[in-house]
Amino acid sequence: MPSADSVTAGLLVIGDEILSGRTKDVNIGATADFCTDLGIDLKEVRVISDETDEIVVAVNALRARYTYVFTTGGIGPTHDDITADAVAKAFGVALPINAQARALLEARWQQTGTEVNAARLRMARIPEGADLIVNSVSAAPGFRIGNVHVMAGVPLIMRAMLEAIAPTLKGGKKVMSVTVKAAVGEGTLGGPLGELQALYRDVKMGSYPQMGKDRVMTELVLRSSDPVLLEEAADKVRTMVAAAHAEAGIDLPAQD
Amino acid sequence: MPSADSVTAGLLVIGDEILSGRTKDVNIGATADFCTDLGIDLKEVRVISDETDEIVVAVNALRARYTYVFTTGGIGPTHDDITADAVAKAFGVALPINAQARALLEARWQQTGTEVNAARLRMARIPEGADLIVNSVSAAPGFRIGNVHVMAGVPLIMRAMLEAIAPTLKGGKKVMSVTVKAAVGEGTLGGPLGELQALYRDVKMGSYPQMGKDRVMTELVLRSSDPVLLEEAADKVRTMVAAAHAEAGIDLPAQD
Repeated sequence: MPSADSVTAGLLVIGDEILSGRTKDVNIGATADFCTDLGIDLKEVRVISDETDEIVVAVNALRARYTYVFTTGGIGPTHDDITADAVAKAFGVALPINAQARALLEARWQQTGTEVNAARLRMARIPEGADLIVNSVSAAPGFRIGNVHVMAGVPLIMRAMLEAIAPTLKGGKKVMSVTVKAAVGEGTLGGPLGELQALYRDVKMGSYPQMGKDRVMTELVLRSSDPVLLEEAADKVRTMVAAAHAEAGIDLPAQD
Repeated sequence: MPSADSVTAGLLVIGDEILSGRTKDVNIGATADFCTDLGIDLKEVRVISDETDEIVVAVNALRARYTYVFTTGGIGPTHDDITADAVAKAFGVALPINAQARALLEARWQQTGTEVNAARLRMARIPEGADLIVNSVSAAPGFRIGNVHVMAGVPLIMRAMLEAIAPTLKGGKKVMSVTVKAAVGEGTLGGPLGELQALYRDVKMGSYPQMGKDRVMTELVLRSSDPVLLEEAADKVRTMVAAAHAEAGIDLPAQD
């Protein structure tokens, strides 16, 4: 349940190479960590193919729902890089060569002795009314239009662009978490954990099974923006886990 | 452009732990590889939170669009495991304890001396009309209802369940791929590659930049279900890359 001051985000990963399995995505995890650090609630991720209509529909769906939209992929110089075209279409604006983007690129190309050609100049096309997102790695900029932040797919560049936009984003309430490890399975903890969740509605409790070497383990993760409530709930969970350990004849406390 | 005999799929990853960054997803990549191997075109992935309404909306959106829907996550024994509830709601059916699922679980619990309790029995609740997907790892089954396949989030179990359903899925035309490596950047190749793409509409050409140690590299990936056309297009791409290498004074052939 998002509260009035919750800040939300949706992430759009654009690229056939992720859907074919050829490239294994790492930008979802990086963006999730980034949002959590800033107190932004990442609500949804979509991975879609390099097709204009798919991108237009997804951008418009996400930008209406969330405070911020981040996109990754499809802003390079080749024919399959159509994210800028699709985002311009989603906003109903033109996609001219942007003078500032062109200057950034030409400065880099001059340094590296790279020829200016039509394919490379595709990367200077920026939707009308957008601000640039600088790219410290390879110069080709991303851009922000409305609440949509369009960034590169190459993970190193994507992370650099996230760092570049961080100061421009408003963070929500910082959410803190406590992890309690149990040496019994989820099935043992599920009942009492559900009761504690019902008692502490403002502390979100998650349960994650792990197959340990010798025994089944469970990590219980508690999240809340209220540190006092979080610690109180965590204490109850620790007591519950200790009881489950005792019941199972396991001589271990709950571990943080 | 899906042809009449194309087989498509959507994947739904359900779990707050992915969106918070706490767990880094690997099921997207595994499912993408699985689909590519079977000639199924994975068209879209969505990652959503453990909220019933979100799951219902996403399941109904994807099952209307694609031949198959796969879901991963949220079928364990704790209060935050609500995928079965949400899928039953999406299909408008009841969610009773399934006798076969209960028998599978109880057989395993008897082996391991595990107590039967209400939390564990949650895992035997299967939507009416669904078939079970066996779980060779931890016994708790997934299920198939309509074109929706509901599977576990634990990667090892997810992969076992994919193996279990593989024989029940119809594959599309097998898509083959050829990768051509170039020792020049995307900006150099973008123009001529776009021309070749326009010439070979039934061969999908993708371009993926890589930062090599000493130089920028580009991988060009060609995909088609027509092996003759694919090889013809690949030859043209190799010739194009060789020309780009010569132009750049690089003494290297295009590499497969």
